[in-house]
Amino acid sequence: MTFDDMNELVEKYVPLVNSDIYDVVKGAPEELYNASLHLIKAGGKRLRPLVVLATARALGGVDAEARAIPLASAVEIFHNFTLVHDDIMDNDDFRRGVPTVHKVYGVPLAITAGDLMFSLSFASILRSLEKGLDEEYVIKAVQALTEASRKVAEGQGYDMLFERSWNVDAEDYLRMIYLKTGALVEASAKLGAIAAKAKDEVIETMGEYGRLVGLAFQIRDDILGVFGDPSKTGKPVYSDLRRGKKTILALKAASSNEKVKELLIDIFNGDSSEEKLKEAAEAIKSTGALDYAQGLANSYSRLAVEKLDMLKASGLIVDEKAYRALRDLAVFSAQREK
Amino acid sequence: MTFDDMNELVEKYVPLVNSDIYDVVKGAPEELYNASLHLIKAGGKRLRPLVVLATARALGGVDAEARAIPLASAVEIFHNFTLVHDDIMDNDDFRRGVPTVHKVYGVPLAITAGDLMFSLSFASILRSLEKGLDEEYVIKAVQALTEASRKVAEGQGYDMLFERSWNVDAEDYLRMIYLKTGALVEASAKLGAIAAKAKDEVIETMGEYGRLVGLAFQIRDDILGVFGDPSKTGKPVYSDLRRGKKTILALKAASSNEKVKELLIDIFNGDSSEEKLKEAAEAIKSTGALDYAQGLANSYSRLAVEKLDMLKASGLIVDEKAYRALRDLAVFSAQREK
Repeated sequence: MTFDDMNELVEKYVPLVNSDIYDVVKGAPEELYNASLHLIKAGGKRLRPLVVLATARALGGVDAEARAIPLASAVEIFHNFTLVHDDIMDNDDFRRGVPTVHKVYGVPLAITAGDLMFSLSFASILRSLEKGLDEEYVIKAVQALTEASRKVAEGQGYDMLFERSWNVDAEDYLRMIYLKTGALVEASAKLGAIAAKAKDEVIETMGEYGRLVGLAFQIRDDILGVFGDPSKTGKPVYSDLRRGKKTILALKAASSNEKVKELLIDIFNGDSSEEKLKEAAEAIKSTGALDYAQGLANSYSRLAVEKLDMLKASGLIVDEKAYRALRDLAVFSAQREK
Repeated sequence: MTFDDMNELVEKYVPLVNSDIYDVVKGAPEELYNASLHLIKAGGKRLRPLVVLATARALGGVDAEARAIPLASAVEIFHNFTLVHDDIMDNDDFRRGVPTVHKVYGVPLAITAGDLMFSLSFASILRSLEKGLDEEYVIKAVQALTEASRKVAEGQGYDMLFERSWNVDAEDYLRMIYLKTGALVEASAKLGAIAAKAKDEVIETMGEYGRLVGLAFQIRDDILGVFGDPSKTGKPVYSDLRRGKKTILALKAASSNEKVKELLIDIFNGDSSEEKLKEAAEAIKSTGALDYAQGLANSYSRLAVEKLDMLKASGLIVDEKAYRALRDLAVFSAQREK
């Protein structure tokens, strides 16, 4: 698949959203604002703004798309805030090919930059008032970001607590990634529907679409973290195994076989020779964990497409290109190579 | 002065606000929520909720006071979030007589607990919808907290940058403490006026009151940090000098006399014998820095009272007790011993 409609909209949206974000993340002290822009400037997929803007356009046409820009910036600023704080917590040195914010500016300024970005994401939501979004919908937008921000923090909490335990099953893991990753994509789709002044049921249906895309995307991320091609992902081979990340692959493989579990524990405790890493990757395949995870991603992806098609069947889609881009994204989430 | 009206309302409000906060800061994972409640449970003055609730009552009576409770909880939760992150950045071990959140739960969970509390402060604002506050005013409330949260982050940024430099004058310092401390008290007073459905000019006037009280409070805090009685403040004698805090006292004293500046630089670089500390405290008095700072606090306090009296003269005060409590607070801010 080539995902032409999705790629066309991404190309249109990235400069729009970037320039809007630079309008919001602007102020003094300069060093704090530079720290806040550091990762945003380094790139990123702008997946969440795509969801916001394409949803707004699919349901409300180009007027809704224009109204949705401050909402798209809000979720991207929020997403980058979470990366700044996550990098501190994980003590990561690099992201998007540049040193992380706390490596450049120090931990205290990086914590504060994250807090500032959190605040600016709400400021960006409120700018939709000036874009002509009614108060009723602005409140819905604030509610959507507030709810997502709570879930993201809870998901981050679970993620850290899971690091200490192997007593985590697939259900626990899926709830965690829904909170940590899915909830913000869910909010992105809701925000797009809100910008289109959609009915509550439609906002909820798009939220479901976002949740499913977010889950497919994260599970595919877990797969690429072990089996991804380093020349495409930009990450070292077996990177999630080296980092000791308890992804769905590791959890599923460990739960199916005591020997595999011991192997993974060894690796996660630091004994990560190339040989052991290769053995673990093979075990993840042989236990069926890889097929299980890809199957999950595929079914979330299919369900997401169904949500869109329900809206289409109800005559609620007013823009074919945006609709096809959202369909593309649902498929891409589960199949992407990078 | 005995501040009877203020103390009476504080006694009424503290249990109300605490119980409301416990309704908001509730969820899973348990350890994350425990970390979020850790400092809130340890006490604190609940100064900001007092400003919210007494303002609402002064301008709108007991109905407005009841509507204001989720807004009062919001500012207190937000304030505690800033303490959690500040303690990490300052690497402080104790606050309110208990170990800080990151000392008990580790830095990663403490960062996340702060982020969760940030989110929950917005969630608490949104609960005012259920209390019957109109959408128009709910948006004003979200705007007030958003604006304050941005300023607090900027103020924290300036505070950290100032640590590296002596090239900071009184004006820079006052802007910094307005952002870091004043802005949230300003927002608290605005939120009270918003709960009372006051006109925009009245909301702004109360915001001014809050800003002035916040400034007086912080300058008095700086004074108590050097000259406070340890048996009342609960902090060691000369605590801000030992900690190398560039308060208005240190900046003013250093700028008036090169020898005093050298003495302070020595102390802040770690050479803090009792003798040197005493000498520095004397120098802060002899250079007039103490009188200057107390004079500033007094004039902010007087100006805050004038704002209230303007509203009273316009017939906008509907509750005498709440009005007197706000007057008490303005005076207390500049004169308190703890």
